[in-house]
Amino acid sequence: MLANRRTKDAAGLVEELIEALGAEQVSTNANILERHGRDESYHPSVAPDVVAFARSTEDVVAIVKLAAKHDAPIIPFGVGTSLEGHVAALEGGVSIDLSRMNQVLEVNAEDLDVKVQAGVTRKALNAYLRDTGLFFPIDPGADATLGGMAATRASGTNAVRYGTMRENVLGLTVVLADGRVIRTGGRSRKSAAGYDLTRLFVGSEGTLGIITEVRLRLYGVPETMAAAVALFPTIGDAVNTVIRTIQSGIPVARIELVDEVQMDALIRYAKLDYPKQPALFFEFHGTEAGVKEQAEMVAALGEEFGIGGFRWTQKAEERSKLWEARHNVLYSCLALRPGGKALATDACVPISRLADCILETRKDIDEHGLLAPIVGHVGDGNFHVTVVLDPDDPKEMKTVEAFVERLALRSIAMGGTCTGEHGIGYGKIPFLQAEHGEGVAVMRQLKQALDPDNRMNPGKIFAA
Amino acid sequence: MLANRRTKDAAGLVEELIEALGAEQVSTNANILERHGRDESYHPSVAPDVVAFARSTEDVVAIVKLAAKHDAPIIPFGVGTSLEGHVAALEGGVSIDLSRMNQVLEVNAEDLDVKVQAGVTRKALNAYLRDTGLFFPIDPGADATLGGMAATRASGTNAVRYGTMRENVLGLTVVLADGRVIRTGGRSRKSAAGYDLTRLFVGSEGTLGIITEVRLRLYGVPETMAAAVALFPTIGDAVNTVIRTIQSGIPVARIELVDEVQMDALIRYAKLDYPKQPALFFEFHGTEAGVKEQAEMVAALGEEFGIGGFRWTQKAEERSKLWEARHNVLYSCLALRPGGKALATDACVPISRLADCILETRKDIDEHGLLAPIVGHVGDGNFHVTVVLDPDDPKEMKTVEAFVERLALRSIAMGGTCTGEHGIGYGKIPFLQAEHGEGVAVMRQLKQALDPDNRMNPGKIFAA
Repeated sequence: MLANRRTKDAAGLVEELIEALGAEQVSTNANILERHGRDESYHPSVAPDVVAFARSTEDVVAIVKLAAKHDAPIIPFGVGTSLEGHVAALEGGVSIDLSRMNQVLEVNAEDLDVKVQAGVTRKALNAYLRDTGLFFPIDPGADATLGGMAATRASGTNAVRYGTMRENVLGLTVVLADGRVIRTGGRSRKSAAGYDLTRLFVGSEGTLGIITEVRLRLYGVPETMAAAVALFPTIGDAVNTVIRTIQSGIPVARIELVDEVQMDALIRYAKLDYPKQPALFFEFHGTEAGVKEQAEMVAALGEEFGIGGFRWTQKAEERSKLWEARHNVLYSCLALRPGGKALATDACVPISRLADCILETRKDIDEHGLLAPIVGHVGDGNFHVTVVLDPDDPKEMKTVEAFVERLALRSIAMGGTCTGEHGIGYGKIPFLQAEHGEGVAVMRQLKQALDPDNRMNPGKIFAA
Repeated sequence: MLANRRTKDAAGLVEELIEALGAEQVSTNANILERHGRDESYHPSVAPDVVAFARSTEDVVAIVKLAAKHDAPIIPFGVGTSLEGHVAALEGGVSIDLSRMNQVLEVNAEDLDVKVQAGVTRKALNAYLRDTGLFFPIDPGADATLGGMAATRASGTNAVRYGTMRENVLGLTVVLADGRVIRTGGRSRKSAAGYDLTRLFVGSEGTLGIITEVRLRLYGVPETMAAAVALFPTIGDAVNTVIRTIQSGIPVARIELVDEVQMDALIRYAKLDYPKQPALFFEFHGTEAGVKEQAEMVAALGEEFGIGGFRWTQKAEERSKLWEARHNVLYSCLALRPGGKALATDACVPISRLADCILETRKDIDEHGLLAPIVGHVGDGNFHVTVVLDPDDPKEMKTVEAFVERLALRSIAMGGTCTGEHGIGYGKIPFLQAEHGEGVAVMRQLKQALDPDNRMNPGKIFAA
């Protein structure tokens, strides 16, 4: 993709950035530019004109003001783990790298909240919290920055119990397109004071402002954690067990589905000691008695659906072992086709439609001869098809793109969404329109109000 | 208060409304106008020019378009239980009464969601759900409409467990100022598709659009519910027990504080068999074993703080009896001063500052000789001072207003909010500015983008 470059006097901008921030905070090194135009998806890199490394909200203000002067687009960058091309500099401009904003600013243990700079990663935060008895649960897999997770409304494996970034961000510091700084939200558990600006910026993908600080909700480390794996005759049986579990209000911390194709990949990759059958991976958090009760209730609910091989453990070491398989999913998929790249879809449907959606999708995959295991955070109705593909084969890419479109529209038609947790980026713009119709026009009006020159991550969420 | 009337040719507007909706859906009866300009607060009625009763989203569109033609303000009205003058027609215009939009449109028991017209009240919804094993937990006290609860981001006694309307509204149908209709959100548990319009309209108090339909999250009726009352030597001891309970992650369904002044009022009003001591009222939801465990944990945590008279029960009848006292709070306050009116404040602070905030506030009340018991949804850090006053005594009103201002600013200074659940209306506009600073300018930009002529509930949230 060729960038439609719009920065006026890019060389002058670079000079002014160096003057404002110092040379060690500005780079035009080709490798660094290339790296900042690319995330973990199969989308190609679209490099910015310059990368500016911010160390503070004030740095971001300075960068935003200089960019405005040169009509340069601004693209926030954390560690580049997004999956829909969010960081691609489609019109060139300044990539603001926030990874040096890596300070934990406040821990309020009594109030179960923490304030971090946007570049702190979730693993770094949890390492910092280790001795407090508290943790931040949201786990999208990648060790993403908390600013990036807020910007893309990330979630992951334990959203079924703890919610997504929508529920767990208490407030934000945001630098707006004109350089103003606002602080949204607050430290109280709830508020009815004015419009919910926090939730407006969570999930806005850098298109309304640059998130520089994030206040998050924390949780006490559960007294007991237990993991379980269960096998099922069919994927429908596994999904029906999930549906029954959710409907019974059992507060499971994680429920992950692995279909038989994915189990096969895992068995080959990690020499797993399981039969090639659809499986559910559970995690339970609570008191010792509560966890035991939850596991027993799930096992009992699964009986109707032929649950088998139910193994469960409270021991940390065995727990990691049970989960290891789930963590190897991506590598096991890539191992199926050396040199292939992975495209992850992100459908999310009402739980009652989950079996239908997964079964129709499995049929679609098989009919089109795709190599595509399924895993899912099924407690939320969210599942990912990992299509292993060759991005340099145009015919295959066309087949895959048609499949991706059918899946997004199938999910929307079932009352679901084209993206449960990855966001729109620039890959899913047509599906956003299909999902929200006139609502997209309203989103555009909000964008226009806060970023009239369309300089904040242009070409994302909305077509340029 | 005199309305700054702006409707052009009000008589012509009434005629056109009758033509569009039929005479039985339009009223200019003086009593009806007066009733629609007033909520349950001490704010005086400011009557609209006309009341239009809507039966459908299409009716609302027709009303909004006619109002636009006449530059008439539009004020949504449910059952008038708001507490900050939200329904006052400060510039005249059309009050859209949504109480006839009282249909439950869909119950999706499998997905734990329901879609209702905006005029369905929370009690009507729960009566409708009675045989399904599901319920909608948010309980602000009043039998408010669900549209009104969404518009004011209401919560109440069991938000500590189930969240507020922010967490429990899945989607909305909204009629915009220009007559466009949008449907926000969706039926899947989570989505990362574009800006969170649902959360933008929740809490917007009718200033951005008219909510006509609401999709809500439901919960399974808990297997077991238990209630408990505990007494404490001081209010600080009671609050410290709450703080410890929340920090321990015990999933209490309700924790209500009643201070000694309020207990005294209740003892006099309802001849309660309790000593005049600060009390906590608890409710626990869960499995039988879980509920027992929760109650035992709370009783153990309270020992350090002199917990006494701990009574608990799982029996429905005894449960209601324990809660009866809490439900009589408003009447018991009014009984303290026959002919008086009640003004309810709405501070909400981080839980670690709750004891400080309540103790300083109690001192403030006593120093200024106010008659003002304290109750609170203290699990959220939210408490209400019920000031019993004579609105016709200007000197007293001045003393009360100064107290209200000190309390709001005290709450904000402690990292809290001027309103935990009542909203801004037109009583709290200066405090919104104190709380959110430059953020209010951003809220105004959003308002300007969606309602450029300022016709949607003008004078609320922002000064006219």
